[in-house]
Amino acid sequence: MKQNKYDDPKFFEQYSEMPRSKGGLEAAGEWPVLREMLPELEGKAVLDLGCGYGWHCRYAREMGARSVLGIDISAKMLEEARRQTDDSAITYEQAAIEDIDMPDGQFDVVLSSLALHYVQDFARVCEQVYRMLVVQGTFVISVEHPIFTARAEQDWHYDANGERLHWPVDHYQEEGLRETHFLGSDVQKYHRTVATYMNTLITAGFTIKEVAEPQPTEEALERYPEMKDEPRRPIFLLMAVEKRD
Amino acid sequence: MKQNKYDDPKFFEQYSEMPRSKGGLEAAGEWPVLREMLPELEGKAVLDLGCGYGWHCRYAREMGARSVLGIDISAKMLEEARRQTDDSAITYEQAAIEDIDMPDGQFDVVLSSLALHYVQDFARVCEQVYRMLVVQGTFVISVEHPIFTARAEQDWHYDANGERLHWPVDHYQEEGLRETHFLGSDVQKYHRTVATYMNTLITAGFTIKEVAEPQPTEEALERYPEMKDEPRRPIFLLMAVEKRD
Repeated sequence: MKQNKYDDPKFFEQYSEMPRSKGGLEAAGEWPVLREMLPELEGKAVLDLGCGYGWHCRYAREMGARSVLGIDISAKMLEEARRQTDDSAITYEQAAIEDIDMPDGQFDVVLSSLALHYVQDFARVCEQVYRMLVVQGTFVISVEHPIFTARAEQDWHYDANGERLHWPVDHYQEEGLRETHFLGSDVQKYHRTVATYMNTLITAGFTIKEVAEPQPTEEALERYPEMKDEPRRPIFLLMAVEKRD
Repeated sequence: MKQNKYDDPKFFEQYSEMPRSKGGLEAAGEWPVLREMLPELEGKAVLDLGCGYGWHCRYAREMGARSVLGIDISAKMLEEARRQTDDSAITYEQAAIEDIDMPDGQFDVVLSSLALHYVQDFARVCEQVYRMLVVQGTFVISVEHPIFTARAEQDWHYDANGERLHWPVDHYQEEGLRETHFLGSDVQKYHRTVATYMNTLITAGFTIKEVAEPQPTEEALERYPEMKDEPRRPIFLLMAVEKRD
């Protein structure tokens, strides 16, 4: 059974209060880096896996994409995405990322922002995306960093005064399910190592073009003081890969 | 000034007592993984950057390499390497890895085992290796993992009873010099992020073939009980890359 946490009313309500839910891409610390990793979007057919509110779908159209398909497992997310979208070239479909199955070579660009750490079978997604991309097509991914997902607690180690001492890592090599707590709810995530992310993409046929472990810009650090400890450990892993031939 | 720690008599003596110094490749937890990442060596010209005692040089010859050049900055290391080697197809030369400068396309395979985290300018090494490799040539690297090098302390976080609680990560995004303590001596290492390792190789022209964050085999864990906590965090990062065209 694929997890559809964002249709849980309490979780959805909490999510809608996050800075990135209210402020969109500009409030997402990693966005300036992810944006630079995207290829030219002018005239392209784009697929967004786990599109959420549709921020990236609308961005792709602003950049001149020919058509955008956003898929998400959550009806509530798509409802909000549709509410915020007035563009007939953007289509939203309710589906689990694992179930995506479109004809070969349908897309020039596939992106997935902070969704694939919810997916158990990353290899299947990579194989499907490879198949659905044109030659020279690009797949751009962000996930929670393996250093972040290793321990189910996903929290800093604090001293007796509540100061953040460091980021604790444990169970790194034990890949698989993590029963985590996020936005006041129990959420299932899947921990994979850095090596597994890279090798699964390579095995599917992709060539790695760029890897990033973004830290907030100076501007973002000023605007969102709660980001001040982000440079102490990586929280996101971004990968841009290409179907070279 | 390039660091030549292994010519410090005290440090060298301590190093010579490590399991991997006495037991060779079989005593190195990551060796089974590194070995699998090496390409076919039969008939190949091989360069080993930071060859130490020459274990990998001799292995390459056992696998049929045509010729092997091992370079190391330490005269003491090379003295021991020569003592253990009786093979005219293996040449040892004293040089810093950063200074390596051979004609284009001289080597089929370049490897570097646990040496490049001592090198400040990784980009220069990647550019030089790319140039010195033939097309289709392979560069195989192991380094201390960025999760391991992030904090200069390079040690576990312990509870009051001296039990290892977890591996602490801090200062991850601050790349550069780390004044560490290793084998009873002060040693300078350079911390780079995972993204920097990958992107520097890609920028130099390489295609990433495989990434590994090895953990000891069951057999190694039985033989070397001190390795029991290794699966809790990655200690080494291995990368095999190719000069594709």
